[in-house]
Amino acid sequence: MTTRRALLEGIAAAGGINAAVAALGALGGLLPTPAQAAAPVLPRGGRPVIVIGGGIAGLVTALELKRAGWPVKLLEASDRPGGRCLTLRAGDTVREADGTTQKVEWDSAPHLYMNPGPARIPHHHRGILGYCKQLGVALETLVNQNGAALAEGPDGPVPLRQVNAGLRGLVAELAAKGLPRGTLEAPLTTADLEALRAMLRGFGALDHQLRWQGSSRAGWAERPGLEEGKPTAPLDPAVLLNPVLWRGATFAEGIDYAATMLQPVGGIDAIARALAKALGDSLVLNAEVFALRRTEAGARVEWRDRQRNGRLKQETAARVVLALPAPVLAALDTDLAAPRRDALRDLFYASAGKLAFQCERRFWEDEHAIYGGISFSARDVNQLWYPSHGFHARKGILLGAYIWGGAAGARFAGRTPAQRAEAAVADGKALHADYAAQVAKPVSVAWGNMPLARGAWVEWTEPQRAASYALLRAPEGPYHFAGEHLSHQTAWMEGALISAWAALEGLAWG
Amino acid sequence: MTTRRALLEGIAAAGGINAAVAALGALGGLLPTPAQAAAPVLPRGGRPVIVIGGGIAGLVTALELKRAGWPVKLLEASDRPGGRCLTLRAGDTVREADGTTQKVEWDSAPHLYMNPGPARIPHHHRGILGYCKQLGVALETLVNQNGAALAEGPDGPVPLRQVNAGLRGLVAELAAKGLPRGTLEAPLTTADLEALRAMLRGFGALDHQLRWQGSSRAGWAERPGLEEGKPTAPLDPAVLLNPVLWRGATFAEGIDYAATMLQPVGGIDAIARALAKALGDSLVLNAEVFALRRTEAGARVEWRDRQRNGRLKQETAARVVLALPAPVLAALDTDLAAPRRDALRDLFYASAGKLAFQCERRFWEDEHAIYGGISFSARDVNQLWYPSHGFHARKGILLGAYIWGGAAGARFAGRTPAQRAEAAVADGKALHADYAAQVAKPVSVAWGNMPLARGAWVEWTEPQRAASYALLRAPEGPYHFAGEHLSHQTAWMEGALISAWAALEGLAWG
Repeated sequence: MTTRRALLEGIAAAGGINAAVAALGALGGLLPTPAQAAAPVLPRGGRPVIVIGGGIAGLVTALELKRAGWPVKLLEASDRPGGRCLTLRAGDTVREADGTTQKVEWDSAPHLYMNPGPARIPHHHRGILGYCKQLGVALETLVNQNGAALAEGPDGPVPLRQVNAGLRGLVAELAAKGLPRGTLEAPLTTADLEALRAMLRGFGALDHQLRWQGSSRAGWAERPGLEEGKPTAPLDPAVLLNPVLWRGATFAEGIDYAATMLQPVGGIDAIARALAKALGDSLVLNAEVFALRRTEAGARVEWRDRQRNGRLKQETAARVVLALPAPVLAALDTDLAAPRRDALRDLFYASAGKLAFQCERRFWEDEHAIYGGISFSARDVNQLWYPSHGFHARKGILLGAYIWGGAAGARFAGRTPAQRAEAAVADGKALHADYAAQVAKPVSVAWGNMPLARGAWVEWTEPQRAASYALLRAPEGPYHFAGEHLSHQTAWMEGALISAWAALEGLAWG
Repeated sequence: MTTRRALLEGIAAAGGINAAVAALGALGGLLPTPAQAAAPVLPRGGRPVIVIGGGIAGLVTALELKRAGWPVKLLEASDRPGGRCLTLRAGDTVREADGTTQKVEWDSAPHLYMNPGPARIPHHHRGILGYCKQLGVALETLVNQNGAALAEGPDGPVPLRQVNAGLRGLVAELAAKGLPRGTLEAPLTTADLEALRAMLRGFGALDHQLRWQGSSRAGWAERPGLEEGKPTAPLDPAVLLNPVLWRGATFAEGIDYAATMLQPVGGIDAIARALAKALGDSLVLNAEVFALRRTEAGARVEWRDRQRNGRLKQETAARVVLALPAPVLAALDTDLAAPRRDALRDLFYASAGKLAFQCERRFWEDEHAIYGGISFSARDVNQLWYPSHGFHARKGILLGAYIWGGAAGARFAGRTPAQRAEAAVADGKALHADYAAQVAKPVSVAWGNMPLARGAWVEWTEPQRAASYALLRAPEGPYHFAGEHLSHQTAWMEGALISAWAALEGLAWG
C-alpha cells in the first residue's frame, strides 16, 4: 500500500475523488468523544419563576429550577404533562380545535399504544437520554431500518433489502467501470487499485469481474435449508431509480435516523411522566394561561382553572418562561413587543400527522417477517411503522400514516377522522394487499388541528432564521423563551431541551 | 422517464450495468412471501425412538415426535438442555475437556449474561422464530449494526458511521465520474441521467457537483443545538480501503446479519428451556451415551447416568436419532458403517470462541453513546459486542472477543482462561483506551475445548459436500441423523432445526 496521500492523488488523477476529501490533518485520533450533555449549573435559590407550557422544554426548565432551589411553578393547560410528547392508549380521547373528538377503542395492554408526536430517540441525543437515565425511564431499541420492510415501487411493493442491495450493486459497478483500465495513470499503483477493487466488490457484492449479478443480500428466491439457497433476481435499475425506493433505502443513513434508535418502553410519554413526577406539586395541570402583563416586580400571569369551571386565577413572578409553540404563544393576550409578535405569527409550523390502527393479528410478522421498521408508500400516508415491541404478541398497533406536512398534511387535517382512515386504508393496500381486512379502530392526530400545539414542529426558512431566530431566543424584560422552534434540532425533543437549557442560562445570568 | 428497458440499455451503452441485471420478467409482483415454516406432519403414534443429543436439533426432533404421540426419549449428556445454545450467568461453571474450569463470578441480574454460542436470530429464520412464538419465548431486538460502534483503523478507532458515509460518498462519486458527460450516448436520455444523478446524490450525500465533501451522516464535529452543527471531516479514502473498516461497515448487508435481528429476552437458552419444558419427562439429562449397537428390533443405546455415579444403563428402540456434533459422534463406540465414520472424522469444525467481561460501568454508553452493536478489531479478538439490552442499567456484560476460528481460534483455545483474558484486554485497548480499567471477571468459551461439542460449527469444503453430505444425511438402518452440520444453514440454530425436520421426514416414511 502506498501512502494515503499518494493513493488519494492517484484516485484524483484517475478522475475520481475530490481533493477536498484529503483532510489528512483531521485523521490522527479523530474519534470524537461526545460531550457529556448536561444542564447548566444554576446559582442556588433564585427569584420566583413561572414556566408556561408543560411540554419537554417547560418540564426541563422547571425541573432544573426546582433542583437548584428556585421557587418555580409550571402551568400546563391540558390535563397531562408532555405537550406533543404524547402517547395514546385504550380509553384516551383526541380532541381537535373544532370539537372533533375521537375515543381510542383499542384493547388495554402495555404494547398497544401510539406515539402521535415524537416517537424515537437517536443514540446521540445525549440530553434527552441523560434525563431518561437520571429518572429511570426504561429504554429499548426502536427498529428504524428493516430490510424486510417494503417500498412501493412502480410495479408494487419491494422489500428494502432488495432495493438496498440493488443500489449498492449498481453504484459499485458504475464506480468500477469508471476506474482506469489497462495503463494505469500514475501515481495509482496496482496495489492501490486492487485494494479499491476489493472494497468495491465487498461494498456492492460484485462478482469477480466487478459486475452486479445479484446476491443473497437482496433476499432469497429459494431459502437455503437442506440445499443451497438461490438469491432473488436483481432489480431492474430503472426500478431502483424510483425515488420512493432509493429514498426509502437511504433515509436511515441520516445521522438522526441511523441505528441505534431508542424508544421508552411502553410509550414516549414515560419521559414526560418521569419529569412531571420529579416536579411534584410544582406542576399545575389544567391551568390555561390567557394573558400576560408586565409588572414592576416581573410579570402577571392570568389563567383559567379548567378543572374548576374555568375559575380565573392570576399570579406574579419575577420571571416568566414561555415554553409554548409559537402559534399558541402568538394567540395569547400579551404585552410582548410587536416585532416579536409579528415574528411568532410568521413562523410556519408543519401540519404533520399520524394515524394508527389496531390489528387483531400481527400480519406483518406472520406473513413478511417484518419485526419493526418502516415501509415507504408512494401515496399520502408516506410511511407505515411496524411496532418494535410486543413481537409475536396478540394484536398490535400499526402506524398506518406518518405525514410530514405539505399538501398531504393539509388534506389529512382537512378530513374527518373517518375520512382519514378510509384514505389510509386505500393507500396501505398498495403495500399490503389484504390491508383492509387486517386494520381496524383507526386513531388519527393532525397536529395542525390540535388546540394546544397548532402544528407539529417549526419549519424555518433561511431568511426567517436570519431575521428572527436571535430575536425570538432573546429574553424580553421578565419574559424568557423555550421550545424546539428555538433550536437547530427542530422537531426533536433534544431541541426542546437544548432551548430549555439556554433559557436557564438566561435566567441565571440575566 | 423512458421505459425501464431503454434506461437499462442506456446505462449499458454508457459503459454501465451488466445486461444480466435486466431480469425484467421477474419484476411483476416480485414480492416473495416467506413460506410458513413448519415441521412435517407426522403419522400418529409411530414406533419408539431414542434421540441422542439435547441441542436444538435433538430437542426439536423429540418434541415433534412427542406431539405426534410417538414414544420418545431424549438422552442428553450434560445437566442442561441446549448444547451449544447456552447462556452463562452468575454461578455457572465452564468445564473444558482437559479439566480447566471457570466459575462465572458476575453479579446476578437478568441483564448480566453471555451467550457463548448462538446469540442472534435473523428475522427470516422462520423455523426457530416459529418455535419461539409457539412456546412463548419473549423476543427483543438485537442491534447488529450500530453507526456509533467502532472499527480499528490504521490510525485508531473510527466510528462506523464515518466509515459507512465515507464509503457511500467515495463509491457514489466514482460512479458519477464514470457517467457520460457532454454528449450523451443514446439511448440514455437526459431525464434518465438526471434520475441516476439524483439517486447518486442521495445515495452518497454528494454535493450538487456530485462530489463527496462530507455530510452529517458521518457524524458531527460540532453538534447542532442552538447553532447549526458542523459535520465531521471526511475520512481519507486510503483509510476507507483498510479492510477492517470497510468490512466492518459492510457485514450487516449480509442476509443473515441485516436488521431486524432478534434475541430472546434474558439469554438464548430461553429457547432450549422452552423446548425442554414442552418435552417434560421425555428428556433425560446427565445421560452420557457411550455405545450404540444394532439389534433385531432396532438399536441398543448404552449410557452412563452421570448423576448416579455413572451407573450403566441401556435401552433399545426401533429408531435412534443421532443429533450430536460430528466430532462427538465420531468418538462414540458405534457400529456405524466405516465410510460414515470416516466422513464424520474428516469434517472440520471451527475452533471459534467468545470471551466476556463484566463491567462496573457501561462506559460504551456513557462515553460513546454506543447502544448495542459490534465494534471491529484488527486483532485476534475480532469483534466486541455491546449488549442490546439493559440500556442505562448498572453494570453490563461486554463481549470482548468473538473469534471465528483459524489461527486466532487456535491461539485462543491453546491459552488458559487467564491468558485469553490478558490477550483480550490488550487487543481491546486499541478500541477503548481505558479498557483495562473498565473490564473485569472474564469468562471464555473455546468451543474446540468443550467436551460435548468439540467445535463451534462445521466448516464444509466444497469437495466434502460433494462427497459426504448426502451420505451423512442418509439414514443407516435404525439410525437417523440431525444437526446444523447436516444443512446449508450451518452454524445457525435454523440449520439444526431444518436438519431435525428432515430427520422427522425420514422417521415418518423410512
